[in-house]
Amino acid sequence: MNIAIVLSGSGVYDGAEVHESTLTMLAIHQEGSSYQCFAPDVDQMHVINHYSGAEMKESRNVLVESARIARGDIKPLDELDMKDYDALIFPGGFGAAKNLCTFAKDGPDCKVDAEVERVVLAAHEQKKPIGAICIAPVIITSLIKDVKVTIGSDPDTISAIKTMGGEHTTTTHGEVVVDEDNKIYTTPCYMLDANIGQIYAGASAIVKKIINSK
Amino acid sequence: MNIAIVLSGSGVYDGAEVHESTLTMLAIHQEGSSYQCFAPDVDQMHVINHYSGAEMKESRNVLVESARIARGDIKPLDELDMKDYDALIFPGGFGAAKNLCTFAKDGPDCKVDAEVERVVLAAHEQKKPIGAICIAPVIITSLIKDVKVTIGSDPDTISAIKTMGGEHTTTTHGEVVVDEDNKIYTTPCYMLDANIGQIYAGASAIVKKIINSK
Repeated sequence: MNIAIVLSGSGVYDGAEVHESTLTMLAIHQEGSSYQCFAPDVDQMHVINHYSGAEMKESRNVLVESARIARGDIKPLDELDMKDYDALIFPGGFGAAKNLCTFAKDGPDCKVDAEVERVVLAAHEQKKPIGAICIAPVIITSLIKDVKVTIGSDPDTISAIKTMGGEHTTTTHGEVVVDEDNKIYTTPCYMLDANIGQIYAGASAIVKKIINSK
Repeated sequence: MNIAIVLSGSGVYDGAEVHESTLTMLAIHQEGSSYQCFAPDVDQMHVINHYSGAEMKESRNVLVESARIARGDIKPLDELDMKDYDALIFPGGFGAAKNLCTFAKDGPDCKVDAEVERVVLAAHEQKKPIGAICIAPVIITSLIKDVKVTIGSDPDTISAIKTMGGEHTTTTHGEVVVDEDNKIYTTPCYMLDANIGQIYAGASAIVKKIINSK
């Protein structure tokens, strides 16, 4: 299987979560599949100093920063044609809710980046599996509405998912919720208080289910 | 075992290599050991756009950027007392040769960051294992001189290591060179053309040897 991974920057507080992204790549490789990273060529919502937690007065580009996780091997999201790929995966990190959509600001009324919307709807229409890790399931719910997902157990996010029309199942480490009809795969990872082994378990579990999907 | 990991930024071309750093953390966790990340509170040598490869006209701090890989759980290197830790590991990435020492500019005549020098010499004096991945063995060689290391098979770097007084063994993916006398452990990782599975193999192998060292 050839899988498109969509990154949202590099760093949990303003971009793609580094461990979730790296361990998704490792899990895909270990299952004998291949991947290509993509990211939208847009500015980040903001830049967070990951040491202090404070906002920094600078601007960074989502594609350019995502390239740090991808070691430069990344393409602009507008070059992703889902006809060339068998599945689509979104690692988490706040970037998914800040740069790929406006959920961090707007909650259930969020807007999704136009290119993210295009590739998610294309994968859905082509009945290809879509995986979303951590907070990323809010993107899928915002776009497809009537989907079964998990983000773990955070009450506010669960409430927002229900408002957007989604059905939520509470889960813990390594568990994957599968929406068979829509081919949507979700797992909580760092939406729960987790160690890196639990992130690897979650990434491995979702990747295996996607690769073994029919 | 409680292991101190020293990061050098976040991103292969100007900082710590993201996969090597993440997979070192995973390997330590999987062996039942714990880790704490550290980084020097200094400016990066420069900032590289990881999408285009060009230098960017901005300045970034090594501790602040390293915090992206560590999810904020990181301490300034001047707070590292090797008496509190059982081993020391340096993941690779050009940051090791640009921010932790000046090898990228000065080759065998490189200067090592004062705090990096302090913790390496303390670990060495206390006979605690020191691991160095990818290009990071140049730091150890520059400081301790007469050591047995590997950086894989790159002729120029091997030549520089010999000039600094080191003994080099050519290795391939997942192989670890052990200098028993100095308790130095090295493995090439992305100093070779590698996939992410090979990086995981290298990180796992070096971590296992360090944790099982006497």
